[in-house]
Amino acid sequence: MQFTLQSEDPKSNARAALLETDHGTIETPIFMPVGTAATVKGVHQHELEEVIKAQIILSNTYHLYLRPGLPIIQSAGGVHGFNNWKKPILTDSGGYQVYSLAQMRKITEEGVRFQSHIDGSRHLFTPENVMEIQRVIGADIIMAFDECTPYPCEYNYAKRSLDMTHRWLDRCIKKFDETEGLYGYEQSLFPIIQGSVYKDLRQKSAEYIANKNAAGNAIGGLSVGEPAEEMYAMTDVVCQLLPKDKPRYLMGVGTPENILENIALGIDMFDCVLPSRNARHGLLYTKQGIINIKNKKWSTDFSPIDAESTAPTSQSHSKAYLRHLIHSKELLGAQIATLHNLSFYLWLTQEARKHIIEGNFASWKNQMVDQVRIRL
Amino acid sequence: MQFTLQSEDPKSNARAALLETDHGTIETPIFMPVGTAATVKGVHQHELEEVIKAQIILSNTYHLYLRPGLPIIQSAGGVHGFNNWKKPILTDSGGYQVYSLAQMRKITEEGVRFQSHIDGSRHLFTPENVMEIQRVIGADIIMAFDECTPYPCEYNYAKRSLDMTHRWLDRCIKKFDETEGLYGYEQSLFPIIQGSVYKDLRQKSAEYIANKNAAGNAIGGLSVGEPAEEMYAMTDVVCQLLPKDKPRYLMGVGTPENILENIALGIDMFDCVLPSRNARHGLLYTKQGIINIKNKKWSTDFSPIDAESTAPTSQSHSKAYLRHLIHSKELLGAQIATLHNLSFYLWLTQEARKHIIEGNFASWKNQMVDQVRIRL
Repeated sequence: MQFTLQSEDPKSNARAALLETDHGTIETPIFMPVGTAATVKGVHQHELEEVIKAQIILSNTYHLYLRPGLPIIQSAGGVHGFNNWKKPILTDSGGYQVYSLAQMRKITEEGVRFQSHIDGSRHLFTPENVMEIQRVIGADIIMAFDECTPYPCEYNYAKRSLDMTHRWLDRCIKKFDETEGLYGYEQSLFPIIQGSVYKDLRQKSAEYIANKNAAGNAIGGLSVGEPAEEMYAMTDVVCQLLPKDKPRYLMGVGTPENILENIALGIDMFDCVLPSRNARHGLLYTKQGIINIKNKKWSTDFSPIDAESTAPTSQSHSKAYLRHLIHSKELLGAQIATLHNLSFYLWLTQEARKHIIEGNFASWKNQMVDQVRIRL
Repeated sequence: MQFTLQSEDPKSNARAALLETDHGTIETPIFMPVGTAATVKGVHQHELEEVIKAQIILSNTYHLYLRPGLPIIQSAGGVHGFNNWKKPILTDSGGYQVYSLAQMRKITEEGVRFQSHIDGSRHLFTPENVMEIQRVIGADIIMAFDECTPYPCEYNYAKRSLDMTHRWLDRCIKKFDETEGLYGYEQSLFPIIQGSVYKDLRQKSAEYIANKNAAGNAIGGLSVGEPAEEMYAMTDVVCQLLPKDKPRYLMGVGTPENILENIALGIDMFDCVLPSRNARHGLLYTKQGIINIKNKKWSTDFSPIDAESTAPTSQSHSKAYLRHLIHSKELLGAQIATLHNLSFYLWLTQEARKHIIEGNFASWKNQMVDQVRIRL
């Protein structure tokens, strides 16, 4: 995997770069649509590519391991063969899902024992087997197994957890280095910085992770309920310690505003369920602000959903029609709204990239942040 | 509305024709995808046109009247303006839905009082106001308000109901003739033949309806649980009495086999929720037979869903992937399966048309009927 810096913004820490993988080149900053179960909900793969213009999508180790299960994914030639998405894929390690979805999880030094949210079956994730599982799934970028601490989190718990996450990282790296990709293309491992909202822990973690000289580095445990200012402070601290010549991935972030602010702090990669999940509930992001399409005020608004959207369905369909579809819980409502929001997120990160390259990112960002948080 | 017979099959009563409306020409025999709430569930309008190659879709008076309601549809310039589907639309009269969906319906000579299945609100449908409602919705083809008798149905009930349906038809025609379309294009009213599975009642009804000299004629009250042989017998009886120079629409039918057999009896138009509803549950129709994609046997079948499908997603995705999506209740599963089944139904009716024009429909039909009912 090759990461090539192209431009740095003179008035912020924002940067534009190219991240080359065996499944194609990613132009950063980039938003990665979430395709939990090897599908971005409500979106065809050809729409991901042609309408949303996704360059990389994310899938979930936890979900794919439980269903359809590894033998099927392996028989398909990995997740790209399974879901027919030929561009890069990143899998998270399952750490976050085990904490948020699984029943009766128990964390020990060994790993995490948990019960499936689907059928209650018992499983064990360890740093080692999560590497093996991600080898089988076959994502281009695979994530270290970590503990994602909740917010708020006591300092002592955050510190103990961080130390274990670091020990787990060493086990991940050892296993990763002992194994090889199964499908003939390169896989890269990203370690994850934790440390809750404690500056000293984040610094310690960033230094620990930076020393591993990994192909890319991730920041986890943010956007879990803390105020945005605390998130930005943590991002800022770690970006100053992470190598400049490696991609930086901020996990699970966030609103359009969060993404713009974190790009300014030096982040290159984002993923979040927000645009797709909120779409299904009728919350639309536009460059003029946020539309809650369920509101009565849109019921007779026959103007396009968003005339400036890069999604043709947002130009051809009216707000009133989308409101009707969302109200009626029609599948097409989720489809149109998801295409809309993901197209907007990809437009936003590509537009940020354009302004970084033009050298006027900071002023554009400040103006855009004010716009995107308006409630229309 | 102009109906032009093009070909009649020498060995059956099948015919190929053109049905011209102000929103475009329909090549019959034709299957009309069901778009209950002004959306075919899981399918974008551009997919309906470009992938499925739908020439006309159906919407439901009952549903649109209740939600979004007539003022919104009228402000949108009718249903075509509302859902941005520019080709022909047919609305059923709400008769069937009132009986199958509404709570506490009460049928009298005046009409039907019912409570909404959405919010329990009370409403009255009469032959007159159902014409007015369909004028506002603005479908190209609107249906008479009838009583759809259940199966089984006592002879005396079926007879009394039929007489009322005929009286209601006269009220429908009177109201229809007194009113005009609101949006500058022609609307045509189709009366509906009832009579349960009683040959004499069906004959009486067909004669009554034929005398009205309507732009097209429909057969209702079939495919409600009766054996297929009884359905075919009733279709046969009425097709012999209906004018040859008007389109014949068999409502709510059916399986691929049912459609082929009824084309052979002289039917030109079909609608049914079967292909779209069954798709969402993983039942796929192909020219080799029926696939229940949920079956374990498909879990590691990485061959295309249907290499011969006219839907690109059925060629590019594997059975194993679609099985995973349907099992996981992922939206994309419903989307891919619905595109598949509706593409197959449109292919089937267009293929029937081709063979009618070529003069070899009957032998093709017999072979195809044997294939499409195989359980794969």
